[in-house]
Amino acid sequence: MKEELLMRFDEAYSGNVFIKSHPTYEDAQAVIYGMPMDWTVSYRPGSRFGPQRIREVSIGLEEYSPYLDRELDEVKYFDAGDIPLPFGNAQRSLDEIEKYIQTLLADNKIPVGMGGEHLVSWPVMKAVAAKYNDLAIIHFDAHTDLRVEYEGEPLSHSTPIRKIAEHIGPKNVYSFGIRSGMKEEFEWAKENGMHISKFEVLEPLKEVLPTLAGRNVYVTIDIDVLDPAHAPGTGTVDCGGITAKELLASIHAIAGSDVNVVGFDLVEVAPIYDSSEMTANTASKLLREMILGWVK
Amino acid sequence: MKEELLMRFDEAYSGNVFIKSHPTYEDAQAVIYGMPMDWTVSYRPGSRFGPQRIREVSIGLEEYSPYLDRELDEVKYFDAGDIPLPFGNAQRSLDEIEKYIQTLLADNKIPVGMGGEHLVSWPVMKAVAAKYNDLAIIHFDAHTDLRVEYEGEPLSHSTPIRKIAEHIGPKNVYSFGIRSGMKEEFEWAKENGMHISKFEVLEPLKEVLPTLAGRNVYVTIDIDVLDPAHAPGTGTVDCGGITAKELLASIHAIAGSDVNVVGFDLVEVAPIYDSSEMTANTASKLLREMILGWVK
Amino acid sequence: MKEELLMRFDEAYSGNVFIKSHPTYEDAQAVIYGMPMDWTVSYRPGSRFGPQRIREVSIGLEEYSPYLDRELDEVKYFDAGDIPLPFGNAQRSLDEIEKYIQTLLADNKIPVGMGGEHLVSWPVMKAVAAKYNDLAIIHFDAHTDLRVEYEGEPLSHSTPIRKIAEHIGPKNVYSFGIRSGMKEEFEWAKENGMHISKFEVLEPLKEVLPTLAGRNVYVTIDIDVLDPAHAPGTGTVDCGGITAKELLASIHAIAGSDVNVVGFDLVEVAPIYDSSEMTANTASKLLREMILGWVK
Amino acid sequence: MKEELLMRFDEAYSGNVFIKSHPTYEDAQAVIYGMPMDWTVSYRPGSRFGPQRIREVSIGLEEYSPYLDRELDEVKYFDAGDIPLPFGNAQRSLDEIEKYIQTLLADNKIPVGMGGEHLVSWPVMKAVAAKYNDLAIIHFDAHTDLRVEYEGEPLSHSTPIRKIAEHIGPKNVYSFGIRSGMKEEFEWAKENGMHISKFEVLEPLKEVLPTLAGRNVYVTIDIDVLDPAHAPGTGTVDCGGITAKELLASIHAIAGSDVNVVGFDLVEVAPIYDSSEMTANTASKLLREMILGWVK
Amino acid sequence: MKEELLMRFDEAYSGNVFIKSHPTYEDAQAVIYGMPMDWTVSYRPGSRFGPQRIREVSIGLEEYSPYLDRELDEVKYFDAGDIPLPFGNAQRSLDEIEKYIQTLLADNKIPVGMGGEHLVSWPVMKAVAAKYNDLAIIHFDAHTDLRVEYEGEPLSHSTPIRKIAEHIGPKNVYSFGIRSGMKEEFEWAKENGMHISKFEVLEPLKEVLPTLAGRNVYVTIDIDVLDPAHAPGTGTVDCGGITAKELLASIHAIAGSDVNVVGFDLVEVAPIYDSSEMTANTASKLLREMILGWVK
Amino acid sequence: MKEELLMRFDEAYSGNVFIKSHPTYEDAQAVIYGMPMDWTVSYRPGSRFGPQRIREVSIGLEEYSPYLDRELDEVKYFDAGDIPLPFGNAQRSLDEIEKYIQTLLADNKIPVGMGGEHLVSWPVMKAVAAKYNDLAIIHFDAHTDLRVEYEGEPLSHSTPIRKIAEHIGPKNVYSFGIRSGMKEEFEWAKENGMHISKFEVLEPLKEVLPTLAGRNVYVTIDIDVLDPAHAPGTGTVDCGGITAKELLASIHAIAGSDVNVVGFDLVEVAPIYDSSEMTANTASKLLREMILGWVK
Repeated sequence: MKEELLMRFDEAYSGNVFIKSHPTYEDAQAVIYGMPMDWTVSYRPGSRFGPQRIREVSIGLEEYSPYLDRELDEVKYFDAGDIPLPFGNAQRSLDEIEKYIQTLLADNKIPVGMGGEHLVSWPVMKAVAAKYNDLAIIHFDAHTDLRVEYEGEPLSHSTPIRKIAEHIGPKNVYSFGIRSGMKEEFEWAKENGMHISKFEVLEPLKEVLPTLAGRNVYVTIDIDVLDPAHAPGTGTVDCGGITAKELLASIHAIAGSDVNVVGFDLVEVAPIYDSSEMTANTASKLLREMILGWVK
Repeated sequence: MKEELLMRFDEAYSGNVFIKSHPTYEDAQAVIYGMPMDWTVSYRPGSRFGPQRIREVSIGLEEYSPYLDRELDEVKYFDAGDIPLPFGNAQRSLDEIEKYIQTLLADNKIPVGMGGEHLVSWPVMKAVAAKYNDLAIIHFDAHTDLRVEYEGEPLSHSTPIRKIAEHIGPKNVYSFGIRSGMKEEFEWAKENGMHISKFEVLEPLKEVLPTLAGRNVYVTIDIDVLDPAHAPGTGTVDCGGITAKELLASIHAIAGSDVNVVGFDLVEVAPIYDSSEMTANTASKLLREMILGWVK
Repeated sequence: MKEELLMRFDEAYSGNVFIKSHPTYEDAQAVIYGMPMDWTVSYRPGSRFGPQRIREVSIGLEEYSPYLDRELDEVKYFDAGDIPLPFGNAQRSLDEIEKYIQTLLADNKIPVGMGGEHLVSWPVMKAVAAKYNDLAIIHFDAHTDLRVEYEGEPLSHSTPIRKIAEHIGPKNVYSFGIRSGMKEEFEWAKENGMHISKFEVLEPLKEVLPTLAGRNVYVTIDIDVLDPAHAPGTGTVDCGGITAKELLASIHAIAGSDVNVVGFDLVEVAPIYDSSEMTANTASKLLREMILGWVK
Repeated sequence: MKEELLMRFDEAYSGNVFIKSHPTYEDAQAVIYGMPMDWTVSYRPGSRFGPQRIREVSIGLEEYSPYLDRELDEVKYFDAGDIPLPFGNAQRSLDEIEKYIQTLLADNKIPVGMGGEHLVSWPVMKAVAAKYNDLAIIHFDAHTDLRVEYEGEPLSHSTPIRKIAEHIGPKNVYSFGIRSGMKEEFEWAKENGMHISKFEVLEPLKEVLPTLAGRNVYVTIDIDVLDPAHAPGTGTVDCGGITAKELLASIHAIAGSDVNVVGFDLVEVAPIYDSSEMTANTASKLLREMILGWVK
Repeated sequence: MKEELLMRFDEAYSGNVFIKSHPTYEDAQAVIYGMPMDWTVSYRPGSRFGPQRIREVSIGLEEYSPYLDRELDEVKYFDAGDIPLPFGNAQRSLDEIEKYIQTLLADNKIPVGMGGEHLVSWPVMKAVAAKYNDLAIIHFDAHTDLRVEYEGEPLSHSTPIRKIAEHIGPKNVYSFGIRSGMKEEFEWAKENGMHISKFEVLEPLKEVLPTLAGRNVYVTIDIDVLDPAHAPGTGTVDCGGITAKELLASIHAIAGSDVNVVGFDLVEVAPIYDSSEMTANTASKLLREMILGWVK
Repeated sequence: MKEELLMRFDEAYSGNVFIKSHPTYEDAQAVIYGMPMDWTVSYRPGSRFGPQRIREVSIGLEEYSPYLDRELDEVKYFDAGDIPLPFGNAQRSLDEIEKYIQTLLADNKIPVGMGGEHLVSWPVMKAVAAKYNDLAIIHFDAHTDLRVEYEGEPLSHSTPIRKIAEHIGPKNVYSFGIRSGMKEEFEWAKENGMHISKFEVLEPLKEVLPTLAGRNVYVTIDIDVLDPAHAPGTGTVDCGGITAKELLASIHAIAGSDVNVVGFDLVEVAPIYDSSEMTANTASKLLREMILGWVK
């Protein structure tokens, strides 16, 4: 009798995870996790609630992608919930994330992260870089995120790309869609051979992808690469961005290329500004396409 | 004295109907009606309140279309209010709608429907097909709506296009903008010769229209063919859709073609998600253009 | 066939009027009308959309009042829609309203108004005072509305009670719940023998009602007499007001007294600030109780 | 290494359940479950999303109740997630719920339900009544919920109290706070000896409780017993209700009485109308107090 | 005269200021001012609160434009706050604005206005035309704004472009993006040699700009030239507009041309409809680009 | 030192000001300042935007209090804008606030603070305690705020009352309206002779005030002492609070007592949750009453 009930419990739990996530960790190819941190944000906080809301609305998704002609059943991904992070303590939070990812990588899982503010990508990328020494970063964002510090604070949501660029070499970092940053950031990128495509994403991406053929790549997407019309639910909206259609096409371009995606994340969804739940719904569809296109 | 007051009452009633609607049924070319039903919706309900809100915001419309160089005064359409539907009973609601449309058609009125969920289009299309035996369907939507049933329920908002396709033959149904559905639905369409344009609307429509020249056509538009950026106020948002500009151009392409539009509807506007009233305003403008372009 | 359809049209129209409103003007005891004007408002406009929204949500009302043990079927009231008002022109709008009410009164209808800003009550009260020379005004509001002018403008939403008080004599005006106004307004009221109950409504009302026994009374309710917690959807929120429960009890106190209510209104519902539709729903219930309690 | 990670997974899952819920079913005293159904609602749907949102905001709760001087650690309750319900099929949904509760009761767990629409309480109460033959129902609500059917449909959110009253005898049902219903419902209750306290809750409850001393009691709370000011996030708001403070006091009155609470639920939280997340937050606190006060 | 104006500046300084605005009036090249007027609006008012909200969100802007490779520090602009306008009195408000601008122009400041409704641009353009006798107007808008009057009122938000066109000659006025207006307005424009680009902005602008080389130009932007997806926070949303990306490109096209911008404004931002603060954020970025691109 | 502070005032003056604030610092009795900090908040951040929004809506206030029969002109208060705080750095922010208050006190100004999170009150109270050695604290709040630390962090919004209680002695601190906290916090208060009135405010306050006659008192009000119905716009809503009416009465009770108010603040207004601007409007009225009642 209890067996039957518990079986039903297992089904029931499916409401709390990303749609169609695999029931067990052991045989999963990829692991989804939330990083509910937003404590270094300068403008409008709230992205700590992003991962849970993305899971909640994922029940509205179809399981089949007509773009990729593939169904979620064809990939095994385990939704491990949110990483418990020490509230307000950025350094310890980043340490927790790094250790967590190290374990995933040791178990040969592809890490699939949901933010939280963009700084959470830094320890993930560091851990991934420790495993793959030819790693390249593909970065979609409205912002450079190349600051050394923000108002004296080296742990800031404005710094993660600078940190990874210095860690693996700026020539291995490719940013797309950038339309906001300090003059110094753009100059630093230029002087150090880092790739920045201002304003545009799909066309320059198609030019870059062949040069990365065969390499291991980590992809980090700040949802604000989208125009605010397409993603109002984020902290730092900045008009002049790309459409969701173009971002989907960019995901599919990577899927069709010869790069090897070894991890990825989608960050900065902030439900409190997402008055029609549009951004959470879009994020859940983007994740479906990334999983179907990149986890092979 | 009372005459004067009652005249004023008549004017006053104009606030409750679609802008510039004709005062009498008898000499109207077209009849607008709401179908306030949303009881088979799987994700986010609320479209039952769509028709009233579209009427309310229509007062903000100009009466002239610079696209078509035509004014609302040049068409006679009567706004008959919402069809009273038995709450929660899908079958009886559909029966009521079908009988209603049969009456309109017997009186040689062009039916102009406002949803409500998409299932309401099924009895309308069935009634129209009974009158015009060469009928073709033009369908704008994010979703295939080709399911046989949804979770065991044959009356579902996911099924209307399947029903009409089986009724008049799949080769007479043309879907545009589709970006969501089950693998089986896409396969059924392909195997049965139904036209599906994935993702795109305007270009494939321009290719299809000449092949329909001279035929009687019913057009059904699910507002979610638009990207959520353009229509947040609907139950099942799905990013990657077209812009309102492209949908307007598609309406105008039909207006400029040689098809004979014998009825049309616009469904799935759900005010509760429409935080800035954007979707209702857009729906009212789309209706103006459909009326001016299609009722000749 | 068409007869049947038109009958259905009549039913359908019921969605556009206050719930259970009587189908014909001639034999109605009371007439409901909207006064969609907000052009003299100083702080936050939007009440012009109030009457339509109150009608829309009235479909959620039960037809029976357990407070009064009476059903809407027991009263005949005709919903005449909104009075067409010349946008932006306060004087002409007020003239239109006054003529409209004169006609209603000549036909022996009880006027039941929905605002719109509070200034619309002034021409109504003036017309009512012309018919009943013993008229008293019962006024529920957060604000005195006793200004002579507002920033040089004698037609302002801050002035209607001053106007009627000067017209019928301040001793015949009874204000309740007042918690906002200029010092001069309170002083003028005191010096001229007008009744003002500051902050409180129900207790002082119970003391006043016996002194009005047998008199003809017009009741004007500004929804902002309620605390913002109970009526966020209004232009000028002012905390410290009464609860909806107390306002209901006050309506019932009048119903149980010996005054003769010859007209009434409910004004200043502004849907754009009414994020959960609470205020419109509350207004529709208040109107039900006023109709059931006061139209005998 | 993996052990450590999995332990962290367990912690992480705590973000998806009601705060401080016990990790295992076997030794839990009570079981929390969601019933995400809203398909028979007549006015404004959306309560199907209530249970998940209540869990989400429960992280903002303190674990200690200064009202009861008790901490959540002192009670063992297991959050089993949402019961998977067949969308749109009311009868099968109710059957699923009934079987689910039967299992819980067979395992001697106290059922703690979160709605969903009020109809979900019917199969729960039926299952509980099968176990406890002296069962009494305490019911807090704005609405009688005593209809035999709604527009011809016997499975409606307006009927659950009628069903249980007929099942266990109207004399065993005690309703409080009722301020809305059809005349026939109030009359049926009166004629059949059912207890209805109109408008008020705490005072009549205090009178009733001693008469129930020693009996097994199921408590069902429709959140709309609260005034809309205190619970805007529900489908059918109805002004004139009680405050959250009074509802808390009522919960504490039951806790301090001699009744034996054998199950309870809180229903009709609808996040889409809950613009400031007030209702979900309030619901989570009410649940904390019910658990601390009633699970002994 | 200037004393009086400067005194008003001090008062006005009670508004918060646009990011990085210069601390002193005397040595500023440009002066930013708000025109918080919305009293002639026919549809949805609220733009009076626009200027303050644009300033508030401007703190989220980067100070550097990667489009123009220029920083805000390179331009001296003084934010003078909102012009105090006599509420509800359109004529006196316009007179106040005209005098204000005359003083600015006498001091050789470039006027940078924030609306408020579009009618506020009329006295500004008149004052600018008095100084530059070769003045041309570049106008971005969804609406023609060419009415002679609106419902009998010559001071209406539908009239400013007609007024300036008659004042400086229709051949000197260039409108772009127009998609709404009366038939008569389009005809008047055509008959009088005024330039109207229907629907499109960037391409026709690029054709027009060379013909204006060397001329003094005033640019007036109604935010509703953007599609509602990009600017929901405005009174009269009208779908089918351009993207923020295209508007940015249009601003940059003017910056790169040989016209001499002698003043400009951005009007019709209405925060109450701007549920995610998207429109205010976009307006503040547009202003940054206009200042950096046009104040040389 | 004052030069530096005044320079900061000039900078700060970039904020709009509270209605009727005095134009000069020198002869002001009281100084209003914002403390836009929310970086130690555990649940929902956003109060950093509170002070500006309170100023913005204060234009809707009447200048006269019918409660106190006093006008704002009778008090001289200078609005110095927001204190510039180093983002994300709690310790430096608190140091800045403390120095700022020390300067105000040296100039014999009464400090009137607007938060921001509650932690900002700690350095203010410390500075005030340094001046008045008989200082008592009156504290209105839903939460004890008596933690020693929060998740290892001694600078947390849960700690300010503990800090001041340890600084001036727990017996000098009087908390009212408390309904949330850890068991340890309530115990610590009891063991150390600190006054805590659970749940209630006005009645216990009236008992306490006579015992404080003649003493210097600082009053700190967390807006969440109000029920969420009355103040949805705050981070940590907690139902069961008092009404705005009771809080007004409590302010007036202090005004009518023999205590000497030497400083006060109102904290935790968070506009992003304040969907109808109710909380900001209420906060601005509360401040008016505090200024009129307490600055003599």
